[in-house]
Amino acid sequence: MPGRAPLRGALGALRAWLLGGFWVWALGGIYGPRAAALRAGTWGNPGAPRPCQAPQQWEGRQVLYRQSSGRNSRALLSYDGLNQRVRVLDERKALIPCKRLFEYILLYKDGVMFQIEQASKRCSKIILTDPWDPLDIPQNSTFEDQYSIGGLQEQITVQEWSDRKSARSYETWIGIYTVKDCYPVQEIFTKNYSVLLSTRFFDIQLGIKDPSVFIPPSTCQTAQLERMSKDCSW
Amino acid sequence: MPGRAPLRGALGALRAWLLGGFWVWALGGIYGPRAAALRAGTWGNPGAPRPCQAPQQWEGRQVLYRQSSGRNSRALLSYDGLNQRVRVLDERKALIPCKRLFEYILLYKDGVMFQIEQASKRCSKIILTDPWDPLDIPQNSTFEDQYSIGGLQEQITVQEWSDRKSARSYETWIGIYTVKDCYPVQEIFTKNYSVLLSTRFFDIQLGIKDPSVFIPPSTCQTAQLERMSKDCSW
Repeated sequence: MPGRAPLRGALGALRAWLLGGFWVWALGGIYGPRAAALRAGTWGNPGAPRPCQAPQQWEGRQVLYRQSSGRNSRALLSYDGLNQRVRVLDERKALIPCKRLFEYILLYKDGVMFQIEQASKRCSKIILTDPWDPLDIPQNSTFEDQYSIGGLQEQITVQEWSDRKSARSYETWIGIYTVKDCYPVQEIFTKNYSVLLSTRFFDIQLGIKDPSVFIPPSTCQTAQLERMSKDCSW
Repeated sequence: MPGRAPLRGALGALRAWLLGGFWVWALGGIYGPRAAALRAGTWGNPGAPRPCQAPQQWEGRQVLYRQSSGRNSRALLSYDGLNQRVRVLDERKALIPCKRLFEYILLYKDGVMFQIEQASKRCSKIILTDPWDPLDIPQNSTFEDQYSIGGLQEQITVQEWSDRKSARSYETWIGIYTVKDCYPVQEIFTKNYSVLLSTRFFDIQLGIKDPSVFIPPSTCQTAQLERMSKDCSW
């Protein structure tokens, strides 16, 4: 897990996203602050469960909840940990008047993100300041809980991991992953026990069916440098 | 589903709980407002999925998220829909300084709830004003989505249902249940697209192992009528 950012810096970046009212703060959330507090994390005793290794290339869907707005946003997700890139495609769930849908292509090796408006293909190119932080359970995470979702003959067993350092400290990140194959189920970012962000993952398929989703459209060759707002300006 | 409360009244009750900073508002959430907007709900066309019938007696655990505080609360849950009663036992997750843990016994047929402090067994008896509203998918709910949680060889398929009436209206309740045996996975209450409450259910076991959990302790024979606060007063 290369280049984990220090907590203060990462939360600062996250906040900047949040204040900007910008969708991709979520990615700042997923790929930024979590690792943050883990540097001094507990390594656990030898008998305790060990973090599993999450899949490195997959596609699926997500519902992202942001506490500041109280809103849920849905998106299709292509996650390529091997090449440090992510593609997010906003999904329209129901009619939200005058809400613009975007596609985001984050290329961490190049340190850039492209924001593409789905309808017009207008493109913005934005510098990524946070280092790559994979969607997985860092090795020094703290085991919190194991439980099943569903019921008899229709259940999966998942584990909860966090960056909590002791019984007296608060966690800032909770990750819920399946036990056997380590599929991500949910990631939660908290501050002083308050949930800032929560992302549920589903319909996960291993591999990347079409790697061209990570190639920005031609409109990005003359991309503007300003982020586009979610809300309509007309 | 007898006695579903009208939306305004139920949300009023929910708000009262929320303002009271009281754990059991959550139950108001689960058993109150959801059904509310469903009276005029869409019945769907004959080919569309139909709501499944959730189990009527089960025990499990829950994590409840409340947007107003941003906090997650954990509890053990015994749910007896046949006899319209619920028992909730606060679980201590990590050390929260000076937070009191309670047990709640809700007997809807008697219209009362007992709040028992776990440490002292002090007991409060509170009148339940909302009618019983079971933890299930009302028949007139709107089918929203179906997806899998987990991944290949380690997944469950769930359905999302809501009380949304048309593509242009907002839902106030979302219920996520497994497809086959209809185990509850998550219930979400929203207002204007904002999440007010969200409860995740897990470790569900069918049946009630020990029905005596619904019998209040002897200290409830001389119960006070005031709710006890979650916070310590000393």
